[in-house]
Amino acid sequence: MSPISRLLNPRSVAVIGASADSRKTAGRPVAYLRKHGFTGHIYPVNPRVDNIDGLPCYPDIASLPSVPDVGIVLLGAERAHLAVRELAQLGTAAAIVLASGYTEVGAEGARRQAELIEAAGSMRILGPNTIGLVNLTDNIVLSASGALEMDHFPAGSIGVVSQSGGILGALLSRAASRGIGLSKLISTSNEVDLDLADFIDYLTGDEATKVIALYVESVRNPEKFRAAALKAARAGKPVVAFKIGRSEAGAKAAVSHTGALAGADRMYDALFKQVGVIRAQTFSDLLDIPAALATNRVLRGNRVAILTSTGGAGTLVSDSLGVSGFETPAPDADTAAQLRALQTGDHAALDRNPIDVTLAGLQPDLLRGAIRTLLASPSYDALAIIVGSSGLAMPELMAGAIQDCLPESDKPVIAFVSPHAPNVGALLTQRGVPAFAIPEACSVALSGMLQHAQWREPTHSAPAAPIDVADLPAGSLDESQAKQLFARFGVPCAQETVVTTPTDAEQAARAFNSRVALKILSSEITHKSDVGGVAVNLTAEQIGDRLKAMKDEVQSKTGIEPQRFLVQEMVAGGTELILGTHRDPLGTAILLGMGGVTAELFKDTTMRLLPSSNEGLSREDALDMVRELKTWPLLDGFRGRPKADLDALANAIVAFSQMAAQLGDRLIEAEINPLFVLPAAQGVRAADGIAVLA
Amino acid sequence: MSPISRLLNPRSVAVIGASADSRKTAGRPVAYLRKHGFTGHIYPVNPRVDNIDGLPCYPDIASLPSVPDVGIVLLGAERAHLAVRELAQLGTAAAIVLASGYTEVGAEGARRQAELIEAAGSMRILGPNTIGLVNLTDNIVLSASGALEMDHFPAGSIGVVSQSGGILGALLSRAASRGIGLSKLISTSNEVDLDLADFIDYLTGDEATKVIALYVESVRNPEKFRAAALKAARAGKPVVAFKIGRSEAGAKAAVSHTGALAGADRMYDALFKQVGVIRAQTFSDLLDIPAALATNRVLRGNRVAILTSTGGAGTLVSDSLGVSGFETPAPDADTAAQLRALQTGDHAALDRNPIDVTLAGLQPDLLRGAIRTLLASPSYDALAIIVGSSGLAMPELMAGAIQDCLPESDKPVIAFVSPHAPNVGALLTQRGVPAFAIPEACSVALSGMLQHAQWREPTHSAPAAPIDVADLPAGSLDESQAKQLFARFGVPCAQETVVTTPTDAEQAARAFNSRVALKILSSEITHKSDVGGVAVNLTAEQIGDRLKAMKDEVQSKTGIEPQRFLVQEMVAGGTELILGTHRDPLGTAILLGMGGVTAELFKDTTMRLLPSSNEGLSREDALDMVRELKTWPLLDGFRGRPKADLDALANAIVAFSQMAAQLGDRLIEAEINPLFVLPAAQGVRAADGIAVLA
Repeated sequence: MSPISRLLNPRSVAVIGASADSRKTAGRPVAYLRKHGFTGHIYPVNPRVDNIDGLPCYPDIASLPSVPDVGIVLLGAERAHLAVRELAQLGTAAAIVLASGYTEVGAEGARRQAELIEAAGSMRILGPNTIGLVNLTDNIVLSASGALEMDHFPAGSIGVVSQSGGILGALLSRAASRGIGLSKLISTSNEVDLDLADFIDYLTGDEATKVIALYVESVRNPEKFRAAALKAARAGKPVVAFKIGRSEAGAKAAVSHTGALAGADRMYDALFKQVGVIRAQTFSDLLDIPAALATNRVLRGNRVAILTSTGGAGTLVSDSLGVSGFETPAPDADTAAQLRALQTGDHAALDRNPIDVTLAGLQPDLLRGAIRTLLASPSYDALAIIVGSSGLAMPELMAGAIQDCLPESDKPVIAFVSPHAPNVGALLTQRGVPAFAIPEACSVALSGMLQHAQWREPTHSAPAAPIDVADLPAGSLDESQAKQLFARFGVPCAQETVVTTPTDAEQAARAFNSRVALKILSSEITHKSDVGGVAVNLTAEQIGDRLKAMKDEVQSKTGIEPQRFLVQEMVAGGTELILGTHRDPLGTAILLGMGGVTAELFKDTTMRLLPSSNEGLSREDALDMVRELKTWPLLDGFRGRPKADLDALANAIVAFSQMAAQLGDRLIEAEINPLFVLPAAQGVRAADGIAVLA
Repeated sequence: MSPISRLLNPRSVAVIGASADSRKTAGRPVAYLRKHGFTGHIYPVNPRVDNIDGLPCYPDIASLPSVPDVGIVLLGAERAHLAVRELAQLGTAAAIVLASGYTEVGAEGARRQAELIEAAGSMRILGPNTIGLVNLTDNIVLSASGALEMDHFPAGSIGVVSQSGGILGALLSRAASRGIGLSKLISTSNEVDLDLADFIDYLTGDEATKVIALYVESVRNPEKFRAAALKAARAGKPVVAFKIGRSEAGAKAAVSHTGALAGADRMYDALFKQVGVIRAQTFSDLLDIPAALATNRVLRGNRVAILTSTGGAGTLVSDSLGVSGFETPAPDADTAAQLRALQTGDHAALDRNPIDVTLAGLQPDLLRGAIRTLLASPSYDALAIIVGSSGLAMPELMAGAIQDCLPESDKPVIAFVSPHAPNVGALLTQRGVPAFAIPEACSVALSGMLQHAQWREPTHSAPAAPIDVADLPAGSLDESQAKQLFARFGVPCAQETVVTTPTDAEQAARAFNSRVALKILSSEITHKSDVGGVAVNLTAEQIGDRLKAMKDEVQSKTGIEPQRFLVQEMVAGGTELILGTHRDPLGTAILLGMGGVTAELFKDTTMRLLPSSNEGLSREDALDMVRELKTWPLLDGFRGRPKADLDALANAIVAFSQMAAQLGDRLIEAEINPLFVLPAAQGVRAADGIAVLA
């Protein structure tokens, strides 16, 4: 058994610093272990107490009668490392350190944290600053969470990992009140050793766990997280994550345009999406989506039948589903006929959707018949049952009738409880019908199920043949160098010639045999057009004089006399995109965005992270990115525009991502802006670009 | 006393069709009247029963001992009108008709409904298809809602009007469970007589009611609704509305582009905004926002102090507030010093925000001190208190401590309860601190308060001098006529000349002394450019030949030989907008939108409704509309663009709206597309337009 398994399933637990007063935090772990039915050995350690509630108490760790599997350390941050060292020396599998006062309080705390890590050696540590863990599958409570004052929690199949101890308690009590069964809850907090990924990995192998719910403040080790999440996804265990810090997006100063547009929070969107983690948008979603997924039922489409005994609430749920993109079509002719055959009341509207059994709603047989019909109907992918006040009179009968029908189909069945009736909701949830008191939660839960069913692991492009870039200098490349870099990796760039004199410029322009653009070439001046360093649509006749004028203007505006210029072919008739990459704490980001001021105002961009290896994005991924842009229709023939060369665009995105993958740490950031996408079969052209090498 | 006041406060109630079986719907009204403490006379009417639970029962309405103030009619739709007629003839103030089977079931139902209206004469009717009403202020229950099985409801100051009876019951039980006090609840349903507006009006005058909450399916009489809502707004009584049918937006077929962009649901946004109604975006918001507003505290800005005893939940609320645009700044130096002076624990972080009293949180004196300091601090406009599991041990003490501080400031104080502890939330709410279990609800509640505090009644422009349009034909105007119409009302239009021959065209073009556009002029062909009917940037030399070619192309594509053409000045250097009007069930809509394909993809538009009189929008309103566009920066100097002529744009919007107001029913729809807005001091030009007159 691995130390992590041992931590979750100890045969013996030492509680260092246990108090005999169960009202104190230090008194809780022993009290909760016993209250919730731990059957192994409990060794309280406290030199000032003989026994705790009849359990013998040991004066110190050295006196323990055997090596405990787990030590719960309740000492303060000044002394916790001493106990940790002793436990490690004994050969304890893991220690849970509750003390706060580590990195979260500054330099002195960071010193203590280093001391703690050193003391633990090869023993695993949960925490510090953790509230501990709860194994509801096996009635093992290794926690001081006040939520454990409750007498009973329904055990179930949702494993929770939280980076906040307080939130763990909130999830525990909230789930219990709603009849949502949990398997394990672990608070990782400061994560000096065991982290989110360790427990995703553990829960993926845990038979009792079907769904993993994460409360995330920050993913400290993205590679490990990615591997663990992918393992869970491949094992068919959905991972749902709520991440706070959404409003800090954009607060980080970002050196490049790309970085600024990306924002840290959006990187999490990209990360989660790529590894199949369903992102809970609100805290409530973190229980609602797992509750639905824990049924292991499968949502294959977006058509929902709503069965109601109260018109208002049926409409409410229907409206909310509609806002979220679900359809609530009327029953097909066969289904309608079957429903009518069940009808006994005068006014029951059984052939529309919501299917309203207002007058007939209290008859379990009718309910059973309607549910069976709707689950068998080819018109629907899921069923939402609305419970009105009439359902409250006989909750057992109703829940039983619904439960009877579940085995006949694997389509999702959820419930919305319209009046305040938490007991009815909990009863339904425990009978396998996740119940919600908020209409939007129905949509959120079904959306989560759909997302899980539709996720496919992204493919990656084969590593590109190694390209030599040893000749490129470190630091900011100038525009010409940047485009040479992109071109080496296969991104088509606008044709251009570097010139220094008016005569050279005229000669270069003549060679292009079309109108040209003239730009200063400088790695010092980054915003060329702001200082008069760009002119477009020039003829060969004009360009010489224009170059002289540009030289003067730029010098007067910047104090720098530009020496080198680019003469560049004019690219016309395309759509402008932005393609960039930068390095984020979560990995290497690839950003695709629509160019132009209007799209910029709408921040129309999308992101991907590169896989950790030297692989770039796949063509499939590249095309997905393009289609995720809100202005995607501009590339797809909107209002009579020509369709864009998607083939070439996908190739360019893949090539650019392979460049980022291959250069790794050497590439700090790069951006093509604009990347012109021409009509079908005419390709793409990078018309301007920046790159910063390490 | 008005009949509506009598309906809410009857001295006597006849219950027609009362059943002696209180488990049946028809048995509930008498049972609930007594259970909830009605002190007036109850007259059950039922020929088959002698008494109901000791109350004498009358065989028919004619036998009643006196004229009842209110009759509750429990008969089916086939017979309800008979009772209504008898009650009306007696002089009953109002009847409540519960039966369903009216317009909601089709033609036969509509016939019954007409019969019911006729039978009522001048007696007021609530319903039919209503669940009745509940007056919690005076313990008067005139309803069959199953929610009334509960024994007790906290009376309070929120009046609820619901167009769904089932939802009324849900709101009643949900509010009670959360300690949210209601004053009156009325279900209006089919609204054959008394409607939403009647009860907004009534509740505005009701002393016990401070906030009005509406559950809206459809506003049947917008003029009356507008007047009632404005009356409430002027009286300082906030109105909060949740409207279903959000996902039906866009489902209505709309003849004009403007209509299609507007969508029915967005019209409600415009209506609500203009009369100061706060729109609840979700069903839950319909209790959360009123609960906050019922405190009568005032939110003057967006800076929130968060006081917490649990770090995780504090961050959660802070994050949610940030997403909603609130700020959570750290305390200023003075406030921080005052907080530090209170500090007793080691680790309590009292000088950041969230202000974390983790270790000190259980001391009511510290809590009181921190709350007083934060309420007095110039750094904050509101205070959010987070209740963690430590607060659960002594809810009374904690609620008392918070309550003690409330009189010292009128800044909003709200609470977030992190663990599942509905009793604690209800206690806080009843002590004047609205408590929420969902982090986003904190933001929603504060946003609602801010919206209420910031609302100002829109001004309107003075009616324009009457403009004669008698000469204009009915039906679709051609482009030239449409622009003449707009110009008469003061909208500047591009200069143009109508021509029929190549020679005339050349002469007209010469007169403009610049390049021109050439368009076919036809009220039959609406999409000119699709059939080759538009050419731009022409010189006087080119235009004659171009006209001939255009004539041929249009004829070959449409079968119609165009006879008339427009020669129009080219407008350059402006930003393209769309300005339209159409008639909606809720009133005359004015739509402003950004032009261009990208903005169209983002549906960047905003709406207003005209006031009912012949007044147009005010300049202030017009400028607000412009600034509401997401692409507003394009008009405001974004990325070095010239600032647009906002003065001229506002004038044009006002003029266009006055046109719509003055033409009233005569104008079916009109649209200027594009309206070019030129740089400052250069004005605007309508370059194309359509108008349809009745």
